[in-house]
Amino acid sequence: MFSSDELSSLRWDPVRGSVEIIDQTLLPHTLRRCHLDTLSDFCHAISTMQVRGAPLIGIAAAFGLARALSEDGSSKNLESARSRLLGTRPTGANLRWALDAICAAVGDLEPDRRGEAALARAIAMRSEDIAQCARIGEHGLTLLRRIEFGERLNIMTHCNAGWLATIQWGTALAPVYKAVAAGIPVHVWVSETRPRNQGMNLTAWELQRAGVPFTIVADNSCGQLMRAGLVDCVLVGSDRTATNGDVCNKIGTYLKALSARDNGVPFYVALPESTIDWNCPAGEAIPIEERDPAEVLTIAGVDAAGEACEVNLAAAGSPALNPAFDVTPGRLVDALVTEYGVYEATPAGLSELRASVYGRR
Amino acid sequence: MFSSDELSSLRWDPVRGSVEIIDQTLLPHTLRRCHLDTLSDFCHAISTMQVRGAPLIGIAAAFGLARALSEDGSSKNLESARSRLLGTRPTGANLRWALDAICAAVGDLEPDRRGEAALARAIAMRSEDIAQCARIGEHGLTLLRRIEFGERLNIMTHCNAGWLATIQWGTALAPVYKAVAAGIPVHVWVSETRPRNQGMNLTAWELQRAGVPFTIVADNSCGQLMRAGLVDCVLVGSDRTATNGDVCNKIGTYLKALSARDNGVPFYVALPESTIDWNCPAGEAIPIEERDPAEVLTIAGVDAAGEACEVNLAAAGSPALNPAFDVTPGRLVDALVTEYGVYEATPAGLSELRASVYGRR
Repeated sequence: MFSSDELSSLRWDPVRGSVEIIDQTLLPHTLRRCHLDTLSDFCHAISTMQVRGAPLIGIAAAFGLARALSEDGSSKNLESARSRLLGTRPTGANLRWALDAICAAVGDLEPDRRGEAALARAIAMRSEDIAQCARIGEHGLTLLRRIEFGERLNIMTHCNAGWLATIQWGTALAPVYKAVAAGIPVHVWVSETRPRNQGMNLTAWELQRAGVPFTIVADNSCGQLMRAGLVDCVLVGSDRTATNGDVCNKIGTYLKALSARDNGVPFYVALPESTIDWNCPAGEAIPIEERDPAEVLTIAGVDAAGEACEVNLAAAGSPALNPAFDVTPGRLVDALVTEYGVYEATPAGLSELRASVYGRR
Repeated sequence: MFSSDELSSLRWDPVRGSVEIIDQTLLPHTLRRCHLDTLSDFCHAISTMQVRGAPLIGIAAAFGLARALSEDGSSKNLESARSRLLGTRPTGANLRWALDAICAAVGDLEPDRRGEAALARAIAMRSEDIAQCARIGEHGLTLLRRIEFGERLNIMTHCNAGWLATIQWGTALAPVYKAVAAGIPVHVWVSETRPRNQGMNLTAWELQRAGVPFTIVADNSCGQLMRAGLVDCVLVGSDRTATNGDVCNKIGTYLKALSARDNGVPFYVALPESTIDWNCPAGEAIPIEERDPAEVLTIAGVDAAGEACEVNLAAAGSPALNPAFDVTPGRLVDALVTEYGVYEATPAGLSELRASVYGRR
């Protein structure tokens, strides 16, 4: 699994000198790659969610900044490009983290050396992400091995925290793929994740492609499935984690965490350390992105002939609100699964993780 | 409000001698009435959800049984028609309640008198429903008056428990309409209610028609809105209530109740007494209807030209599961609002209600 680089959410094309992505807005109906050649291409790809998922957004932004610096390595352009990229999505922590990493790598260099150095750093970040996600998978697998289950291990996930949200493996899906590779009979409950349906569109597509058994359900079903004893654990990703253990993730995550706690189902969050905002003391401080209400009022799919089409769901003139993320308090999170190991979602747990990270750096 | 009989979810047409309904599967895009002339018409209308909502299903079934008896008043046909109607939807309590009421009204009569008597009882049940819902609205209004709010009273509802689910007023929306009439500045959060979107399709349509301010949100948003302090109370209906206070309602209700409790938001359930299953000791005993997975995998709307169309959302071959209801434990319900008054969602509260009902009968 994931032995080749053939299908990846984002790769550097050295021949063309540009970045190739999968346009995730077209999945699951069409698998189309496209190239990002200009800073505007990168900004557009992130804001329209052609690439999404906190880790992948970070890496895409790093390549975008490298691209801008290869055109013009001046400090003025560095600041301007950084600012444009930072404005594309407000909630995820990796965007700022990745841009800061590039700035740190090139800040002291002469302007005409910055493009090359930034590209080298972005390429390295991409490789590091793969290794980190693989380690998250291994650490998550140790948790999954402790769960008693019947005929199959029923894992519920939300949104997409698979390889489409990273480079390979994913965060929440990495332990799933590792469990499958280890011969554990896994079944995944995929909640569709309205309004943009990343569960139905991306997670189900990933799992289908990988031959992992899954069932799609409406987001509303998740509580009832837990009450019926059909869920052995919940495993989700994170867009930003605060230092008290609060987790900001795709809207609807909090409801699953509440239901998991009410039914004694373990609730795990898988995340690379880069997703933790060490300057954020609590979930209340995280800005929640509000996206276009049209994402609630319309939906895209394919018609009977397989042609892509978008339909209006609501009566004309209906107002809607579209917050894209919610905050799950750390008290509802049973464990944070990182590339450094498994930690409590508490101030003490985050402090311990921080010590581990700085000790190893 | 609701002074005329002009727009009603179901009415008896004495000239044609049949029942006229609004085909709710076409809303909000098309308002079309249709006639139910045969027992098969009634069964089809209930199972395909042209009429839905526990109270309306009950009344439609009563008229359906009356229709069958007007053709053939034999005991054999009574039992056969009752059985066919009872099989259309398994979860709601009113279906059996209404059929039992008709059977009780006609069982001792000569076969050729049964059709007329059943029709008279069904017409009376329809009128009683209107009066009951108006009383639910008044009792609910007393609860709403006690809530402190800022610029507007933000009420969150789920699915549709408005006049489209009953005959007039509704259950959960009755207090909303009464509050608007009383001059309270109400705003309603309408959760879309996947998979069939009765919130977006029916509740928003009702509120828009009545000039009540509302905002549509994805079901996933409801927890975040409560965390942000944007919800003053939750008000939902019930399809079946157990004698311990457990409430079975549209899938997703339980998640709202969990979130309401976690955020100190009052969670009220509005229901006519006919929705209580006095033979059901707890939610676990309620059969949860599983509907066609296609309801999750496809969705209906209108295209840019306003033409009705259905789109496939998931990749071909994706499995889905579609439980239509969930159970909210009574411990999460702050009050049951009935036509007899407000009661605790506990065995003691239900006993008290039962005593009130029998005392007044």
